[in-house]
Amino acid sequence: MQFHDLKTIAEQEIIPGYKARFVHGENITLAFWEVESGAELPEHDHHHEQIANVLEGKFELIVDGNSQILEPGQSVVIPAHVPHAGKAITYCRLFDVFHPSRDDYR
Amino acid sequence: MQFHDLKTIAEQEIIPGYKARFVHGENITLAFWEVESGAELPEHDHHHEQIANVLEGKFELIVDGNSQILEPGQSVVIPAHVPHAGKAITYCRLFDVFHPSRDDYR
Repeated sequence: MQFHDLKTIAEQEIIPGYKARFVHGENITLAFWEVESGAELPEHDHHHEQIANVLEGKFELIVDGNSQILEPGQSVVIPAHVPHAGKAITYCRLFDVFHPSRDDYR
Repeated sequence: MQFHDLKTIAEQEIIPGYKARFVHGENITLAFWEVESGAELPEHDHHHEQIANVLEGKFELIVDGNSQILEPGQSVVIPAHVPHAGKAITYCRLFDVFHPSRDDYR
């Protein structure tokens, strides 16, 4: 088995205010984020399907121009190639799931 | 966007003591579990790759005969077809990620 402990995974600041720890499988990547209050995620897209989830805080996610405020226990499925952006309304802990794996972050 | 709120997703007791709420994408399924203390997960396997994660509690995961006690912030990657079993040491909240999607639970 491949065991991972977030405490021992190096944090990477992917964009300003967005720090991630990644767990990679063969075909799935899990990204655990800590996000500073107010930090903005510029619009982007990728060929990976994504499911975005909030563990703590409030996060505004804008998918293809539609805004949704996400709180803990809420999830959004973002299909491949669909542009999305976001903003941390508060300090947030988020996690994203990607398929295929994010080899750009291995 | 496909927005999901766990509070409005029907809970399914998949095996005794294991209640799940599923969020399905096209190629990924997320399963959020509430597990009763002491509940046992019989050994099984499937063609889906899986990443198991603990949000709350202590869970013993046995992958291909190797036991690991998982706590919050710890994850295990279970490759496709590898047999695994488990037991909730305490009440647990877990989440699993699967690829391909769990069409058997749609």
